[in-house]
Amino acid sequence: MNGAALLSTGDEEDKISAQRRGKSAGDPSGGCSTAHLDFSFLYSTDLLPMTDGDLATMTFLQDVVDIMLGYIVKSFDRSTKVIDFQYPNELLQMNNWELSDEPETLDDVLVNCRATLEYAVKTAHPRYFNQLSTGLDMVGLAADWLTSTANTNMFTYEVAPVFVLLEYVTLKKMREIIGWQDGHGDGIFSPGGAISNMYAMLLARFKMFPEVKERGMASLPRLAAFTSEHSHFSIKKGAAALGIGTESVICVKVDERGKMIPSDLERRIVDAKQRGLVPFFVSATAGTTVYGAFDPLIAIADICRKHGVWMHVDVSVLPCLPPTRANSMTWNPHKMMSVPLQCSALLVREEGLMQKCNQMQASYLFQEDKQYDVSYDTGDKAIQCGRHVDIFKLWLMWRAKGTVGFEAQIDKCLELSEYLYDKIKDREGYEMVFNGKPQHTNVCFWYLPPAIRCMEDGEERRRRLHKVAPIIKARMMEYGTTMVSYQPQGNKVNFFRMVISNPAATFEDINFLIEEIERLGQDL
Amino acid sequence: MNGAALLSTGDEEDKISAQRRGKSAGDPSGGCSTAHLDFSFLYSTDLLPMTDGDLATMTFLQDVVDIMLGYIVKSFDRSTKVIDFQYPNELLQMNNWELSDEPETLDDVLVNCRATLEYAVKTAHPRYFNQLSTGLDMVGLAADWLTSTANTNMFTYEVAPVFVLLEYVTLKKMREIIGWQDGHGDGIFSPGGAISNMYAMLLARFKMFPEVKERGMASLPRLAAFTSEHSHFSIKKGAAALGIGTESVICVKVDERGKMIPSDLERRIVDAKQRGLVPFFVSATAGTTVYGAFDPLIAIADICRKHGVWMHVDVSVLPCLPPTRANSMTWNPHKMMSVPLQCSALLVREEGLMQKCNQMQASYLFQEDKQYDVSYDTGDKAIQCGRHVDIFKLWLMWRAKGTVGFEAQIDKCLELSEYLYDKIKDREGYEMVFNGKPQHTNVCFWYLPPAIRCMEDGEERRRRLHKVAPIIKARMMEYGTTMVSYQPQGNKVNFFRMVISNPAATFEDINFLIEEIERLGQDL
Repeated sequence: MNGAALLSTGDEEDKISAQRRGKSAGDPSGGCSTAHLDFSFLYSTDLLPMTDGDLATMTFLQDVVDIMLGYIVKSFDRSTKVIDFQYPNELLQMNNWELSDEPETLDDVLVNCRATLEYAVKTAHPRYFNQLSTGLDMVGLAADWLTSTANTNMFTYEVAPVFVLLEYVTLKKMREIIGWQDGHGDGIFSPGGAISNMYAMLLARFKMFPEVKERGMASLPRLAAFTSEHSHFSIKKGAAALGIGTESVICVKVDERGKMIPSDLERRIVDAKQRGLVPFFVSATAGTTVYGAFDPLIAIADICRKHGVWMHVDVSVLPCLPPTRANSMTWNPHKMMSVPLQCSALLVREEGLMQKCNQMQASYLFQEDKQYDVSYDTGDKAIQCGRHVDIFKLWLMWRAKGTVGFEAQIDKCLELSEYLYDKIKDREGYEMVFNGKPQHTNVCFWYLPPAIRCMEDGEERRRRLHKVAPIIKARMMEYGTTMVSYQPQGNKVNFFRMVISNPAATFEDINFLIEEIERLGQDL
Repeated sequence: MNGAALLSTGDEEDKISAQRRGKSAGDPSGGCSTAHLDFSFLYSTDLLPMTDGDLATMTFLQDVVDIMLGYIVKSFDRSTKVIDFQYPNELLQMNNWELSDEPETLDDVLVNCRATLEYAVKTAHPRYFNQLSTGLDMVGLAADWLTSTANTNMFTYEVAPVFVLLEYVTLKKMREIIGWQDGHGDGIFSPGGAISNMYAMLLARFKMFPEVKERGMASLPRLAAFTSEHSHFSIKKGAAALGIGTESVICVKVDERGKMIPSDLERRIVDAKQRGLVPFFVSATAGTTVYGAFDPLIAIADICRKHGVWMHVDVSVLPCLPPTRANSMTWNPHKMMSVPLQCSALLVREEGLMQKCNQMQASYLFQEDKQYDVSYDTGDKAIQCGRHVDIFKLWLMWRAKGTVGFEAQIDKCLELSEYLYDKIKDREGYEMVFNGKPQHTNVCFWYLPPAIRCMEDGEERRRRLHKVAPIIKARMMEYGTTMVSYQPQGNKVNFFRMVISNPAATFEDINFLIEEIERLGQDL
């Protein structure tokens, strides 16, 4: 590294820091008074790139930072509310949110920042257990701020040299971890797991029928994709979008723990072939959405190889799996690794396939006569043109934690979920949705208020129980004390689906959740 | 607004601010000394949610902020380089970018932040004119920082109440501006213009053949989509992905200014019908990528209506158009409106169609028995599951600038491009790629070094000229003085494609660009 250059950057920072501290230039004490720029007379046009906009800009941005730092401290404080819940029509009335022709002052802009955070859900709060409860990682947050400051785009090396290299380094590391030899293969970060899954399906189709790119589905036989009943709904969404159709997504049965049954997969593949369909894609899941189940990957890989079908794995957690023989894998660091939203990677075993499948060689972006190795221009590997920089937060967190840090964090969540399971499995008023310890951090359970406990099994009891979780959750939100998911599944009425992925949570927070469920639900 | 609540938030900020200033608690002077937390002994595990992590967290985040503020000031300083260009293999060697099993200290994390910005392209620099040269808006940046701090997801109101409402308010305002009555209609923010365009094509197909969602393209006749030769490559990418195929995207001729020729569109629609294809989608462009041309929207709308075809408009700029009769519109505020990347909206005339087209009603997210009006849960309108919050930066910038502020900003860019055009149109050594004033901020031109000027027209001259722009650009990047796009187009050899969208640029910067082209290219 160029130490001298970095040192001089440090000098620049010191100047900024000094300027910020002494920003009230006329202060006779020469002390550390804060700014007295009156933002009620200043507008965005007074900031940079305005020639003398430095001071106003630094002061304005620092004020926003102070608002955010205040919010962060409050977010981790258990005495604050997780949410100050307002109904949509009420919230619309609580501030003037309308857009107008005329500008407002920077003072008003700051007021708007405060108002926005005032009614935001504190996803960093140790008692936030709702969807994507991955907390707020401080290094990840810093990295996301820096990403915004760099304000660039992943399509070419020339506009994002460092980020493109970090994506390259990180994807290679991820492929090594999942056991692909020497980290060979390909991949890309995409806007979320659903898009990564769709990209995988797109690649599988192209691999089998490359003519689809030019000629469309009309030139193909009818295809069939396979995934378990409990897989994520994005597989069907992807099939609908890609013109494959949801009817061509064949749902494979799961066992009582939510794992795909390999024999049923094979039976359905054979059956599809007999009906004249062409099986092209199997999506297995490592950590299903609801039960947190791990499909038996080895058995599924054997079946895929036997029938010549692309195997995709939708992974929700840093996998501790034997090297699979998957063709592609969706790995979402914005889940159990707690990387700020969004951060999803698609890993692909075959090099060059993504480029062939998606490239259109736009001459205004992907000139072949650039001075550098244009294989670093990754933009043509995806459907997107511009692509948000999602890599830096993952990379910086990985540097800060090391692989061992991510493992420890996930182990802690697993420990908490086992604690929750142990606590409620024999507790009066609770029933587990499936038996046995959770495979992952998902704990699914019913809470039965006393009045329901003594009812006989039957439709009326089910009807009553179905209403319990929604009411308890609504009350949690009204009080603002905690948030947790619930849902029905198949013929099972609404149950709580607790996914522990918030690194801020402790045993006491789990105890609190149980107490809160009982406090808010005992009268139902 | 709840004034008391916001005031108390202010107190919190004051505490933070005071804590930050006096963060060296043992400082006997009690003055404004900066922190002396030694980050070379601290790790990410010493930050929040660690119980006593407040001070370390605030100091660490403030240090990152100081690094960013230093970078911002430098970015707007014309005496700094736009880019410290390194070839990929060199840049890989200039730092240890590898990921390891073990954590590194917070000190090292800060060093990494500096190194990353050291080699970043300064997209805010007044002389950055490369792709997506939209500068760095200070309010937009603040808003993006705040978005990261809120770290949530657009799929449901319960996790992003304010942001969901701001999207609602902003989409309505955008529909009003494009002239849809009372702002009626639908829409969503998506991960970039390419995805917005693909969503439009998906909707058009579903509108005509709703059975495609379940049954796929196999149940449909062969479709045909139409767009101009100069439209963005994402239309073909979308068609490939959706299983329509690039051959089914029929390219309509453009005039010498790059505008779609309506009579050619109609001819091709009729011809496609005669060949048994079903025309379902026309994508017009308002501000093409290369020439900045505006397709004749009214004439195209007439043809679309006559033939019963969905009309989409891909808009690159806040449109000053008469109310069109488009069915959908892609509007990318991350272009001429200078909203930080990414920010792209798809507007759809028919309410409810997006939901019908894409919904899968995942029971873990979109429970119907929530306590609030679940029509605010917008997640099922798109293919994505989780969706990044892209709305806040646009909304806050709109509040800060007003509509008039955006207009002024765009007018300034138009003025600069006219200045550039006037300056070079008769200047020795320049040739324009198309005649007449640019319709938009795109100025496309060749620079001919003296040695080429005196050559006779012919293949050799073309061959030489083709190499000029790439070499000049490579030299610009080596010197780091400026960056600008070039490209070939059809049978036209490489030319400079200057798109002026950087609000920091001035007349002097345009002069500088011309001087720099001549300085770096005269020997070629």
